[in-house]
Amino acid sequence: MSDTIISPLAPTSTPDIAPVAGVTLAAGSAQVRYTGRSDVMLARIAPGSSIAGVFTRSSTRAAPVLWDQDILAESGGMAPDGKPLAIIVNSGNANAFTGRAGEESVRAVAAAVARTMNTDERAVYQASTGVIGERLPHAKIEAVLDDLAAGLSPDAWHGAAAAIMTTDTFPKLAGATVELDGKTVTISGFTKGSGMIAPDMATMLGFVFTDAAIAPDALQTMLRESAQDSFNAITVDSDTSTSDTVLLAATGQAGNARITDAGDSSAAGFRAALDSVMRDLAHQIVRDGEGATKFIEIGVTGAETDAAARIIALAIANSPLVKTAFAGEDPNWGRIVMAVGKSGEAADRDRLTIRFGDILVAENGWVAESYREDDGAAYMKGAELAVTVDVGVGTGRSTVWTCDLTHRYIEINADYRS
Amino acid sequence: MSDTIISPLAPTSTPDIAPVAGVTLAAGSAQVRYTGRSDVMLARIAPGSSIAGVFTRSSTRAAPVLWDQDILAESGGMAPDGKPLAIIVNSGNANAFTGRAGEESVRAVAAAVARTMNTDERAVYQASTGVIGERLPHAKIEAVLDDLAAGLSPDAWHGAAAAIMTTDTFPKLAGATVELDGKTVTISGFTKGSGMIAPDMATMLGFVFTDAAIAPDALQTMLRESAQDSFNAITVDSDTSTSDTVLLAATGQAGNARITDAGDSSAAGFRAALDSVMRDLAHQIVRDGEGATKFIEIGVTGAETDAAARIIALAIANSPLVKTAFAGEDPNWGRIVMAVGKSGEAADRDRLTIRFGDILVAENGWVAESYREDDGAAYMKGAELAVTVDVGVGTGRSTVWTCDLTHRYIEINADYRS
Repeated sequence: MSDTIISPLAPTSTPDIAPVAGVTLAAGSAQVRYTGRSDVMLARIAPGSSIAGVFTRSSTRAAPVLWDQDILAESGGMAPDGKPLAIIVNSGNANAFTGRAGEESVRAVAAAVARTMNTDERAVYQASTGVIGERLPHAKIEAVLDDLAAGLSPDAWHGAAAAIMTTDTFPKLAGATVELDGKTVTISGFTKGSGMIAPDMATMLGFVFTDAAIAPDALQTMLRESAQDSFNAITVDSDTSTSDTVLLAATGQAGNARITDAGDSSAAGFRAALDSVMRDLAHQIVRDGEGATKFIEIGVTGAETDAAARIIALAIANSPLVKTAFAGEDPNWGRIVMAVGKSGEAADRDRLTIRFGDILVAENGWVAESYREDDGAAYMKGAELAVTVDVGVGTGRSTVWTCDLTHRYIEINADYRS
Repeated sequence: MSDTIISPLAPTSTPDIAPVAGVTLAAGSAQVRYTGRSDVMLARIAPGSSIAGVFTRSSTRAAPVLWDQDILAESGGMAPDGKPLAIIVNSGNANAFTGRAGEESVRAVAAAVARTMNTDERAVYQASTGVIGERLPHAKIEAVLDDLAAGLSPDAWHGAAAAIMTTDTFPKLAGATVELDGKTVTISGFTKGSGMIAPDMATMLGFVFTDAAIAPDALQTMLRESAQDSFNAITVDSDTSTSDTVLLAATGQAGNARITDAGDSSAAGFRAALDSVMRDLAHQIVRDGEGATKFIEIGVTGAETDAAARIIALAIANSPLVKTAFAGEDPNWGRIVMAVGKSGEAADRDRLTIRFGDILVAENGWVAESYREDDGAAYMKGAELAVTVDVGVGTGRSTVWTCDLTHRYIEINADYRS
């Protein structure tokens, strides 16, 4: 990238992120592709921890994703007896579509991290983000592992978040604390991503850590359900990376009674806090959407099912014509109608209701009598917008978040060669 | 629109379109929205003709679409006894999302055209294209019907094609002749569209006429199957209009033995000519895609089924990141891999083959040994590009056509208010 304009939608302050008992982090510069910045992140997660993961559904998944899925399934999300888990992430090279060489790199990195960290190879989770189709120069990563291990610290959150950035214009962190069994439990995490894919393959990666004691199955359920309304409810450009990965680790050092069932009422407070951290992180990705000038919430109600509502909401959020209308601050509700119609899900044209914020725009299949184009135009000038659509056929509902489609998106993705 | 740059992909010459025995056309200016240009087209199709139609699948279909579907189903595609069919089309107002008023306008126009043309109301097919959500000022159309009827001519193809344009930068016509039973049969048609939806709602409309004798059921089958690999195989921006309509009328005046079964071997030559006209028209829409500088054919082979191949091809053709890479003349095959992966259809990452034109780019899950980035970059400088992808799991295949995503698309759709 030739410039580093920070997104106008970036948070105005960087959050303080609390340490998580049992988790230490380090960042370093392996010069995988970038120079003059950090590009490798290592996390150590204490023995006895649980881990869960959700991954891209792409059929052309990258080698590290296949590795993580394999070791997660094999271990059931448990750390090896008496040994830590590790997470190693590099930016600059996605190790995707690299054939057999991709697997060789993953195995080499796993072996090297395992040696350095005194754990098993198959306890080393990995993610890579950057260009596709080029062999990962894994020896460069191996060369900095001793320094990383020596520098592991409970406080290196911002450095870790910065090391995994590609086209991101700001590091993305979020955290929360919550009471559980009278113990204070911490949740801290970071993420990266700005297009689903971008010149440097702006894969979506997320890493969240907690000191709560949670059994792996329950942790996996919590992560999967939380991702559904956070990382899986955002879209910048409708494109899906070969490498998307979100990992959630729980060290158990907070001292709460171990949660073994995600549905337990005792877990509700923790899950609400987890959802809030996950949603905060996911929203930050949209706020760093390539070229974004508007942060837009699309809410759909009245669909046949929640799944149908999600499909309609994504049809609106991914429509280039809707997204360019937002960019142009054009209250073009006709394009919303079009997007609802093309979604393929049931909608009653003659009961459709559309609101921009609190402004009733359309109802009963036509523009609302009270609607004034000037009100819609004034609303569109804001940087934080909400569109709600009731499609009038049922009780299904869903909310997704997206950004507008601007000249800057074209500049980032067409004008510079990757 | 503040300017009328003609698409750089427009055909360099305007085709001569042959008259079709039994078809007369006229264009006029009703000033529905535009001034200083024609905006209404009337076609008269002689008694004894058959008609077929394919329409948008949008759940928020416009009033004229619902009307056409209704009268087509009721009549079985037959003209009323001894009376003509009519097609009336206006640009400037889509009569979409206009509630009960939309139906009233359609009925008023049908009644007026029927009176003027001495036919039944329910023999009057209609299409409207332009802004959504504003009541159609149908009296303006009724006011010019007598002049239109008086001016009906067998030669007014270019005028008719021009009258239905919205954001189109050139009129779109195509024709063919073919021998059938020793008779020369003519096929002539025109279309409009440049985004699926655009500032003025650039709906896709197509009207094709032939003097062949073809029974309605056979005609409907021919149209539906032909549309599948023409109008339904193109995408500019993945958005689907509320008003898309393609009508095919057959007057029977060429004197061939009436075709009653689309599968008859005697129909093969005619169908090939029809497919060629339909494909030509559909390609012209892509060539007028908003902001397009590249005409791109995406061919997918080796999928589980033809339908799966179509889904993969459209995932590639609709990917903003693929489309911006083409705009940037960037041979970014990693984005093709991404798009295949996100399609949701089966693909074997390790057997994936990608070609740019004749250049082998990737095979066996990695960049091809023979591939040179310079060759890919040189290829991308062309205005007519072909990408072929074999996904290595079966024998399904599909071809679709699209264009690139440029700054001009953003200008057209964001910078000007509709």
